[in-house]
Amino acid sequence: MSYDVKAASGQFFGRIFAFPLKVYYEDTDAGGIVYYANYLKFAERARTEYLTALQFNQQQKLEENRCGFTVRKCAVDYLKPAVLGDSLIVTCEVREVKGATAEMYQEIRRGDELLATVTVKAAYVDLERKRPTRIPEGLLTQM
Amino acid sequence: MSYDVKAASGQFFGRIFAFPLKVYYEDTDAGGIVYYANYLKFAERARTEYLTALQFNQQQKLEENRCGFTVRKCAVDYLKPAVLGDSLIVTCEVREVKGATAEMYQEIRRGDELLATVTVKAAYVDLERKRPTRIPEGLLTQM
Amino acid sequence: MSYDVKAASGQFFGRIFAFPLKVYYEDTDAGGIVYYANYLKFAERARTEYLTALQFNQQQKLEENRCGFTVRKCAVDYLKPAVLGDSLIVTCEVREVKGATAEMYQEIRRGDELLATVTVKAAYVDLERKRPTRIPEGLLTQM
Amino acid sequence: MSYDVKAASGQFFGRIFAFPLKVYYEDTDAGGIVYYANYLKFAERARTEYLTALQFNQQQKLEENRCGFTVRKCAVDYLKPAVLGDSLIVTCEVREVKGATAEMYQEIRRGDELLATVTVKAAYVDLERKRPTRIPEGLLTQM
Repeated sequence: MSYDVKAASGQFFGRIFAFPLKVYYEDTDAGGIVYYANYLKFAERARTEYLTALQFNQQQKLEENRCGFTVRKCAVDYLKPAVLGDSLIVTCEVREVKGATAEMYQEIRRGDELLATVTVKAAYVDLERKRPTRIPEGLLTQM
Repeated sequence: MSYDVKAASGQFFGRIFAFPLKVYYEDTDAGGIVYYANYLKFAERARTEYLTALQFNQQQKLEENRCGFTVRKCAVDYLKPAVLGDSLIVTCEVREVKGATAEMYQEIRRGDELLATVTVKAAYVDLERKRPTRIPEGLLTQM
Repeated sequence: MSYDVKAASGQFFGRIFAFPLKVYYEDTDAGGIVYYANYLKFAERARTEYLTALQFNQQQKLEENRCGFTVRKCAVDYLKPAVLGDSLIVTCEVREVKGATAEMYQEIRRGDELLATVTVKAAYVDLERKRPTRIPEGLLTQM
Repeated sequence: MSYDVKAASGQFFGRIFAFPLKVYYEDTDAGGIVYYANYLKFAERARTEYLTALQFNQQQKLEENRCGFTVRKCAVDYLKPAVLGDSLIVTCEVREVKGATAEMYQEIRRGDELLATVTVKAAYVDLERKRPTRIPEGLLTQM
């Protein structure tokens, strides 16, 4: 049997990509709020969907030439906690792209409330040789 | 700024509730497949959305009377691995409900392929007193 | 600078391997207890250390011939919840080994209290070809 | 049956607290390396053990007066990837403490190699009222 129901993949609002998600038990901790590391999971889901929206298939690149983005630096500002059951929006906006690296600015929002900001500097890496490699041309142009 | 985009919440196909999700890096492990414990996260997301579809608000119950479902037993059969980028469907079907416990049968599917089955026996628990307590009447009837 | 301090690796008590761990915020959820999927992480840590104690190096096998154990079936009984700060012991005992599969029985304990039991059926798999393959002879004998 | 084996709790080397851990499958992703968010889990484990070494019991504070540390800001520099099976050391060093906030500098090391640095600004928070509150005097002095 096949079920016709699809996960959200996010969409662009001008230059800003917005991806929705919900907070489940797995995301929370005994403090009753979302565990601090999990905001990075949320941010990465949005970046993945952003890349997918640009026709970039991570799994294919991983299989074909063992390449993928890896994060070099990230910084998170936690402003207000998210809690179980929240419907969140994670944005993704490119700040700078060149050669093998891309900088992104991301927000984690609950409606009008800004809960956290995430800045990420990612490098495109050959995972076999563990070396930065040029971002594929088509993707570079689109970003 | 507010972004009008929503996470999928699943829907009923007859008695079977189906919830869609995608596999991200966070879900995978160095074996190149979804980490075995994460199927339980997927299953719990679907159960949460199933309860939400029945108008049951977990976070509200947690805040109001510190009650929630906790899993007593679960069993997973792993048939085929899910990988990065997969679009999966997680089903949720009640097998038996009585008093303080509910038994569910769940499938994790990729289109027509059955990847895993999960059976769960959950108890409704007063988390302060750490004791099973009767499932609220309205929910019991619906399930 | 180098720091001379080592993580626990567990040890045998007769045929039973016992591995200690502590519960951190990451392991808990908003219900104030350890999230149900995380018991499978605990169980897998103990199995890894058990294999390591038998001189079996997972990462090496993964790199050399893309082989590793993957779980085919597991079942968990949750008896009492673990909470933040708990010192737990996870045991690991082989029930049956043959060809490409191994069955293990595991307990998660807090001192004298039995919190959960986990039974796991794992297969030794060639991850490239996604096929079961014979457990290496040396390991098979020891288990 | 009781098993006499203990998880490592870390120790001080002068002002620097060092906590050891191992990398398991749960920590890795399909890129074959430790998932980027999980470095924050490692960092938090070390901070927890650091607080424990100063006789500060998080779970007790959470139960008694619903207070705990929550992270306000963090920044991670990823220098080299950790992989499955690695034995890591996570350090923890207080940079500044005052009133309700503490700043820490942490390193994640594999022997002599520095893999990542983490800086964290944490606030001591009343989780019921969701407000910063003064760090308990005894702890403040020790830090």
